[in-house]
Amino acid sequence: MRILGLDPGSRHTGFGCIEPQGSSCRVLTQGRISCPSGESLPERLARLAEDLDELVQRWDPAIAALEKPFHGVNPRSLIVLAQARGVLLATLAARSIPVEEYAPAEVKSAVTGNGRASKDQVSRMVRMLTGVDGDSLSEDAADALAVALCFAARRKWRGATKG
Amino acid sequence: MRILGLDPGSRHTGFGCIEPQGSSCRVLTQGRISCPSGESLPERLARLAEDLDELVQRWDPAIAALEKPFHGVNPRSLIVLAQARGVLLATLAARSIPVEEYAPAEVKSAVTGNGRASKDQVSRMVRMLTGVDGDSLSEDAADALAVALCFAARRKWRGATKG
Repeated sequence: MRILGLDPGSRHTGFGCIEPQGSSCRVLTQGRISCPSGESLPERLARLAEDLDELVQRWDPAIAALEKPFHGVNPRSLIVLAQARGVLLATLAARSIPVEEYAPAEVKSAVTGNGRASKDQVSRMVRMLTGVDGDSLSEDAADALAVALCFAARRKWRGATKG
Repeated sequence: MRILGLDPGSRHTGFGCIEPQGSSCRVLTQGRISCPSGESLPERLARLAEDLDELVQRWDPAIAALEKPFHGVNPRSLIVLAQARGVLLATLAARSIPVEEYAPAEVKSAVTGNGRASKDQVSRMVRMLTGVDGDSLSEDAADALAVALCFAARRKWRGATKG
């Protein structure tokens, strides 16, 4: 089952597609969709939709995972993030890909065991769990992989308790 | 020149397409895109993109006008509105339709002469300026027409001062 993690941002949207295999997982692709700063906001959002659609068609994930929007940031950042988020959600739904959302603390907890882990701790655990080299992993992609791993961990846990 | 005004909302997005003719203007279409509450957020956003795209293809506006996001509302509403807004902007850019944005006070001022006019005053002036009957005009569509009228008024004013 392929899981696509996404981490929307104003300039860069991180992505990471994983396939859990027993206790480990394989990273099929990871990176970020970047929008040139010379483009207008609508153009950047249209490019985001287009690039995500290409990703989805290429990697055919069964599910997408995103963090829930974080209320603590300032209104301007919140608007920018939510606009990108809306575009991601609409693009996923247009391809009938279900979306799971997790609070930031849930993601940190699933990946590091600590809901208040630092960005650095999350990134280190993501590298360890996926085997992706730190140099080839942007912060945005690490955050996206963390959400995908969160979904995988939750599903495994649910599977274990169901059995 | 056809102007498409849009007023994004969580459940309903108002729209109104006008064509200024001398001192008056003709309303080509107006209404609202509604999303059934039974649908998930991603599904609602995907439907919004699809319906706006149909509108744009049918009416072929030269420009779209929207209100700038309003920071005064609570974070939850801000996220919901910004997500819908992001979808609208991406859909417009994908069809190469330029977007103009106005602060709420600019819209009120352009339509009523008063930047602090009430919703009711704006709606009354919109009906007067467009000739649309109140019964067939939803609040969302009235707000969308107000932004379109704001663009038309600005352009006329710019034209007059240039001459």
